[in-house]
Amino acid sequence: MPIALLTDFGTKDYFVGAMKGVILSIDPHAAIVDITHEVEPHDIRSAAFLLASCCRDFPPATVFCCVVDPGVGSDRRAIVAEFGDRYFVAPDNGLISIAINEPEKARVHEIQNPNLIRPETSTTFHGRDIFAPAAAHLSRGVKASELGPKMDSFVRFNGLGIVKTETGLEGEIIHIDRFGNLITNFRSEIATDTIAVVVAGRKIDRVATHYADIERGELALIPGSAGFIEISANMSSAADILNVKPGQKVRLDA
Amino acid sequence: MPIALLTDFGTKDYFVGAMKGVILSIDPHAAIVDITHEVEPHDIRSAAFLLASCCRDFPPATVFCCVVDPGVGSDRRAIVAEFGDRYFVAPDNGLISIAINEPEKARVHEIQNPNLIRPETSTTFHGRDIFAPAAAHLSRGVKASELGPKMDSFVRFNGLGIVKTETGLEGEIIHIDRFGNLITNFRSEIATDTIAVVVAGRKIDRVATHYADIERGELALIPGSAGFIEISANMSSAADILNVKPGQKVRLDA
Amino acid sequence: MPIALLTDFGTKDYFVGAMKGVILSIDPHAAIVDITHEVEPHDIRSAAFLLASCCRDFPPATVFCCVVDPGVGSDRRAIVAEFGDRYFVAPDNGLISIAINEPEKARVHEIQNPNLIRPETSTTFHGRDIFAPAAAHLSRGVKASELGPKMDSFVRFNGLGIVKTETGLEGEIIHIDRFGNLITNFRSEIATDTIAVVVAGRKIDRVATHYADIERGELALIPGSAGFIEISANMSSAADILNVKPGQKVRLDA
Repeated sequence: MPIALLTDFGTKDYFVGAMKGVILSIDPHAAIVDITHEVEPHDIRSAAFLLASCCRDFPPATVFCCVVDPGVGSDRRAIVAEFGDRYFVAPDNGLISIAINEPEKARVHEIQNPNLIRPETSTTFHGRDIFAPAAAHLSRGVKASELGPKMDSFVRFNGLGIVKTETGLEGEIIHIDRFGNLITNFRSEIATDTIAVVVAGRKIDRVATHYADIERGELALIPGSAGFIEISANMSSAADILNVKPGQKVRLDA
Repeated sequence: MPIALLTDFGTKDYFVGAMKGVILSIDPHAAIVDITHEVEPHDIRSAAFLLASCCRDFPPATVFCCVVDPGVGSDRRAIVAEFGDRYFVAPDNGLISIAINEPEKARVHEIQNPNLIRPETSTTFHGRDIFAPAAAHLSRGVKASELGPKMDSFVRFNGLGIVKTETGLEGEIIHIDRFGNLITNFRSEIATDTIAVVVAGRKIDRVATHYADIERGELALIPGSAGFIEISANMSSAADILNVKPGQKVRLDA
Repeated sequence: MPIALLTDFGTKDYFVGAMKGVILSIDPHAAIVDITHEVEPHDIRSAAFLLASCCRDFPPATVFCCVVDPGVGSDRRAIVAEFGDRYFVAPDNGLISIAINEPEKARVHEIQNPNLIRPETSTTFHGRDIFAPAAAHLSRGVKASELGPKMDSFVRFNGLGIVKTETGLEGEIIHIDRFGNLITNFRSEIATDTIAVVVAGRKIDRVATHYADIERGELALIPGSAGFIEISANMSSAADILNVKPGQKVRLDA
């Protein structure tokens, strides 16, 4: 079955290679695909957004093996969650909590079974020693319940962190993509013709349906393909024009 | 069958993951390989060069799924071209026009069949919604003609853009590779011992056959592996030495 | 069988795509995985470290196709080594010499058979013309001995380059990973509680078992997951704190 990798390991080290080697050693028929390894180091929130933005495009039984893990070696738990016919293997730090938007429907197990992880577990590289083996065993048909005991809950963070203010809503930029589009945490559904977004002192009230519809040098709001409102420019970077970074507050007046 | 991806989506976002998920949902047995996702954003010409430089190395029936698409959401068409026993799925903006060097032998169809693309097509991410599904259906055996109506022509740009001058030819740098080699649009066949290339005020008239044959600090002309003349330095970057960028004009005196 | 790629070709060019195309043309069932293509250009030593750090995680019969090849086109040889049930295809320049830590147990052949490499071999791109075809033929079951004559030795460099001094040992930083951890060439086995490492004028004598165990702003020694002692900081880059680069000398007092 497909195993999709999402990490902050970058692509210049041996980390990703080691994970793939471990997976193929356990399940030679796994179809390994890279989602990304370029999550900013330790940025769990951005990783959670990226996972949520593409996991539904994968077929049932896909195993997502996700490692953004600043707490590696501490007592944070390693978990597998079954949700929507797919498996999410990750540290229990919120990484999977935007993808699993109906947590009550997820079945979660802690990964503990010493026979299904690496016999000698390092304290610094659980991607290789715990997460990759667990993902590969799931891919070859092992049940999640064999990996360890059932858990009643898992760590979630407020993925949408939106605050109501007197004039509207306050959210933030959760991701900036390669093209410099600013992805906010406002759901696309609220993008009507009458909204206005204020970011870095600039008001943007034009809603465009696609990038080519924006005038050169202009900024517009786009109901983005990941389901969130984006602030975009045509053929240039909105991030450069506005000089903002992830975490920047954004006000929405409706 | 193999599906080879070539985009300007970069590798830090969810875009490539979403395309792979869609492909595996339609054809679980597709062998997905990445050519590159690091084309400069919106640089159709560089993408066209890269595709042309490697497509013949792939086996028959390979599907190339290519997305460099500044016009996404506008009225540019989505097409599939059958050429040389391979399939080229891309926006109709010139991207495939260097690879398809005998356009009269290509059979081209517009991608329109609503049953073979994503039911709800976004206006910003046709890589996921149109190109990936079309590529996956071709991979699992659907005929190109089922994707949509036959077209009589497709957008081409003058991939070689060479102008005759009084003293010789004027071309340009179409790509700079990772090692700083400058790839010109002069075909390697014309690299004889008597040619000289002038770029950025510097004349280079030594033809070397391989990098190790160039003296440290020297520049030489190499009949490059992609079929074009390259300007190269040994163990250092010709691009840094000459301080040039893609698009730089190059004169060739023969 | 799996073919694992490790090169310094980067991911913005057509080089990796061409290699994958060649491999799939010869062995359509090869499971191609990328280890990394981001080795610093021409840095054979770093490539050798990365290969050694993950090759044992791959299953038997894996073919490692490794190309960091500043001497391409010169008279350096192309080789295949069988070692530990795995195959290493590479230029004979030391790249595989850390991975093959018991050279007397390796069986090495020069790659020469014109029927098993590209008929017209370029002088600049042996990754496509020699190494990829050789790897693909091995993957589909060709014996290493069919690729060319047996060799008695292969190029090795002193992968561990440690010098005894009056007070202890002198080694160096052989790799800096994405997180800024400094990987030394001191084996983890010698990391006892009483060692101290001096680098860039700073003495570090705390041995931590995992990153989360290091105080913010502190530096510590970690017996790293690749088997070497690392100098690490928690949630920040030791490389930035110490302002060092690969090749930096390191003193170890025991």
